[in-house]
Amino acid sequence: MLVDIKGKDVLTTQELSVDEIKAILKLAKEMKKDRFDKKFNQLLKDKTFLMFFFNPSLRTRISFEAAATELGGHAQFLEPKTMRLKKTSQGVEVQAGETIEDAAQVLARYAAGMGIRILETSVKHYGDGNALLREYARWMNVPIINMADDKYHPCQGLSDVMGMEEHRGDLKGKTVLMSWAHGALARSYCSVHENLLITSRLGMNVKLAYPKGYDLPEEEIAKVKKNCEMNGTKFEIINDPYAAYNEDVEFVYSRNWFGPDFYEIGKEAEIARARKMTDWICDQERMDRTNNALFIHPMPVDRGKEVTDEVASGPNSIITDIAENRLHTQKAIMAMTMAGLKVKI
Amino acid sequence: MLVDIKGKDVLTTQELSVDEIKAILKLAKEMKKDRFDKKFNQLLKDKTFLMFFFNPSLRTRISFEAAATELGGHAQFLEPKTMRLKKTSQGVEVQAGETIEDAAQVLARYAAGMGIRILETSVKHYGDGNALLREYARWMNVPIINMADDKYHPCQGLSDVMGMEEHRGDLKGKTVLMSWAHGALARSYCSVHENLLITSRLGMNVKLAYPKGYDLPEEEIAKVKKNCEMNGTKFEIINDPYAAYNEDVEFVYSRNWFGPDFYEIGKEAEIARARKMTDWICDQERMDRTNNALFIHPMPVDRGKEVTDEVASGPNSIITDIAENRLHTQKAIMAMTMAGLKVKI
Amino acid sequence: MLVDIKGKDVLTTQELSVDEIKAILKLAKEMKKDRFDKKFNQLLKDKTFLMFFFNPSLRTRISFEAAATELGGHAQFLEPKTMRLKKTSQGVEVQAGETIEDAAQVLARYAAGMGIRILETSVKHYGDGNALLREYARWMNVPIINMADDKYHPCQGLSDVMGMEEHRGDLKGKTVLMSWAHGALARSYCSVHENLLITSRLGMNVKLAYPKGYDLPEEEIAKVKKNCEMNGTKFEIINDPYAAYNEDVEFVYSRNWFGPDFYEIGKEAEIARARKMTDWICDQERMDRTNNALFIHPMPVDRGKEVTDEVASGPNSIITDIAENRLHTQKAIMAMTMAGLKVKI
Repeated sequence: MLVDIKGKDVLTTQELSVDEIKAILKLAKEMKKDRFDKKFNQLLKDKTFLMFFFNPSLRTRISFEAAATELGGHAQFLEPKTMRLKKTSQGVEVQAGETIEDAAQVLARYAAGMGIRILETSVKHYGDGNALLREYARWMNVPIINMADDKYHPCQGLSDVMGMEEHRGDLKGKTVLMSWAHGALARSYCSVHENLLITSRLGMNVKLAYPKGYDLPEEEIAKVKKNCEMNGTKFEIINDPYAAYNEDVEFVYSRNWFGPDFYEIGKEAEIARARKMTDWICDQERMDRTNNALFIHPMPVDRGKEVTDEVASGPNSIITDIAENRLHTQKAIMAMTMAGLKVKI
Repeated sequence: MLVDIKGKDVLTTQELSVDEIKAILKLAKEMKKDRFDKKFNQLLKDKTFLMFFFNPSLRTRISFEAAATELGGHAQFLEPKTMRLKKTSQGVEVQAGETIEDAAQVLARYAAGMGIRILETSVKHYGDGNALLREYARWMNVPIINMADDKYHPCQGLSDVMGMEEHRGDLKGKTVLMSWAHGALARSYCSVHENLLITSRLGMNVKLAYPKGYDLPEEEIAKVKKNCEMNGTKFEIINDPYAAYNEDVEFVYSRNWFGPDFYEIGKEAEIARARKMTDWICDQERMDRTNNALFIHPMPVDRGKEVTDEVASGPNSIITDIAENRLHTQKAIMAMTMAGLKVKI
Repeated sequence: MLVDIKGKDVLTTQELSVDEIKAILKLAKEMKKDRFDKKFNQLLKDKTFLMFFFNPSLRTRISFEAAATELGGHAQFLEPKTMRLKKTSQGVEVQAGETIEDAAQVLARYAAGMGIRILETSVKHYGDGNALLREYARWMNVPIINMADDKYHPCQGLSDVMGMEEHRGDLKGKTVLMSWAHGALARSYCSVHENLLITSRLGMNVKLAYPKGYDLPEEEIAKVKKNCEMNGTKFEIINDPYAAYNEDVEFVYSRNWFGPDFYEIGKEAEIARARKMTDWICDQERMDRTNNALFIHPMPVDRGKEVTDEVASGPNSIITDIAENRLHTQKAIMAMTMAGLKVKI
């Protein structure tokens, strides 16, 4: 079957079909293998990809800009502070100036596609960032790629599972443990959500561990549960920092995230609470109780809090491979949505 | 006749011949039609175009950077805050450090051309921004392109008339209404000046409407009058927000600009005064009294103040087409001045 | 002999062999002659070069970005403020967030090489900037290029001697005068060190003039002395603003630098002291006492303080040529270290 997603927005993997996910992963692996091959380096020739960064980022900016370069195109790095944009029709205030209706229609004339990154620190209410992307998508007839918003991070999720498959083959029936971790970073949900959504989608069992009070948004958990039900796999929630590490587990994802009251209590209160729960860390002792699990993480890693140095730099850590995959999955997405490359699966 | 403007600075259309303007427009239209054709995408191959942004901009930055990309070259986005530059010999203070004499001569060794954007908010006196461009032009033997200064905006003017011609054919003898509008943006003269200069130059009748006290600089009005005289066309000033909308009018340009005392009274006083004159807005009722006029504007549009949503999003609004033309006119200018492409007219 | 420095970091010319220096200079001259030739413009095709600017710069940023473009690649302009990086293992605090170990290993997956610029104003202690580069070099298996740190500036040194050779042929046995100059800029050592190191390395006699109290770091002076000893040339220190200008001198480099107590007394105290010593300036009268010496300087020039306008803009000033050479030496370094181009000397 030939998968064609030309013109499609990529806002979360949950809104792609499983076949579309498989096609992106297949192409990404091929692009990793033949990275500078002629079959890929003309796909965005002379074309412009716009990157809107409402929040800064190391990996995301560099990997998207390199992706455009390797496809023969050019990515423009844009920060809203150097632009004049107005609030959206969906209530997201951005900056005095132009409506998204006006700006977006012009941008679509210049560019082959646009990526947007907007996290919780740039918006007032949970979901406003994602709403901004949808507002741009509404007015632009070129693909919008989510470079991480306050809800989702599809390129990270795709890179996670690509790395997991590279090291352990087919993921069906395998178990991933997603564990909350302490620390002072009050981290966003997007990478966590996306990993839960895509691993459950691809037929994995999901263990979700976190301290009481750190529930993820119900709406997303409902999707993960439904994904598991459809695949006949297990979904478990465990409120204990040790118990989830058992011999079923083949992948451990240990990551801080803020509590559901974050938008009310603010960053400082969240941090004060989270940094005390020092039991919530991934260490070698716990890893030893698993099925030789691989350590995964979207980076940057908060060493000594989310995970010990021993695990993060150890032989079972595949974090650098997953980070590299950002480049390849993003190239695949851009090639398929913007250049119309079709992939046979 | 073959038009050759290799090496020429483009500071305002008033300093180009009418033939040169026609050649740029002809090439821009061809580039719009065959946007990614091989005949254009090697013109700036491996060459660097420098963009100096003393003031931020959405359309200008993206369209110039895309223009360089589509010609096979690369545009560098530079902001003076990240550079060390000294005051010019013409009295414009920029930043402690290097003289323009020194910086400009080095830049000319690296780049095929340079664009500069500097508006009234970056200078102390009217004309200082334009003087800065002329100072760079003096020391650099590669073309300087005005990306909007405190006096002129040639790429916008060219894009305006390109869009007007695309929708209504030859502009000779047709009438454009340039009307002041209220609002809180205290806008620069550059786009307004350039439109008046280029439309009068190409043989249009010009109606200029604004409230008493909002005269444009005499020096520019004198040029517009002379342009009209040379073409035997009409130039009119009307101090009324309604009267100018009549059956002669085929194009309406409604735009806020600050009063002549702006540099003394400052932004806040200007805004306080301008936002009260709510009569000065382009609405459908007024448009209905024209000769089915098209609405034009350099964007960003201040909706609800300069123009109603009904008009701005209506079928006679060609603002997105004009904004798109920025890309094409800029490509044409760069191709002709930097790559030496000659155009037959 | 065929010189191959593929994969090599370039942190200072002192850590290159003389043959490697000669090979870079030979290639740079060829690249200057055939600037846009096909033999060079595919060397970094579709590859990414990362530029980390902890300190802003005009020439460095533009020349490196243009270098990447002219080799067919793309340089990404990155400023640490838009990134999340943590302190290095060598004690350099950068920003809360990620360790260099983690960041660097990921960057090496995306890029063909990386340039870093970090001067004394971004670090607490002399040498911390250089240590940061070495920390990145430790973790990355792609070349690290020093774009100026608090100790060295290899690309500037190479460009200096390239310009000197272009105008005066073989440098062996010729004399360069490096003179301190007054002014209010409290300038870094890096360009001064590098010039002393590379000129002494290539067999020049070195005269170093500065007021008492402005000694350069002993460690670097020891290297310069040893370079001279190995070449059988003269090294002299003169604490007088006039005496060093004599008929031996064929090149004059007049430049401000801060005193050894700068990191303790701070910028203001340094400036207050340095601006008083108005005798320390390069003027035509002094130049007239030399062997028709050429004036060299890494720019930006502090006119009226380091050198008079008469000398800086005079016929013997080769500062613009040297600045242009930054482009060519950097292209040569990138081609050899990143693309593996071998050079026969």
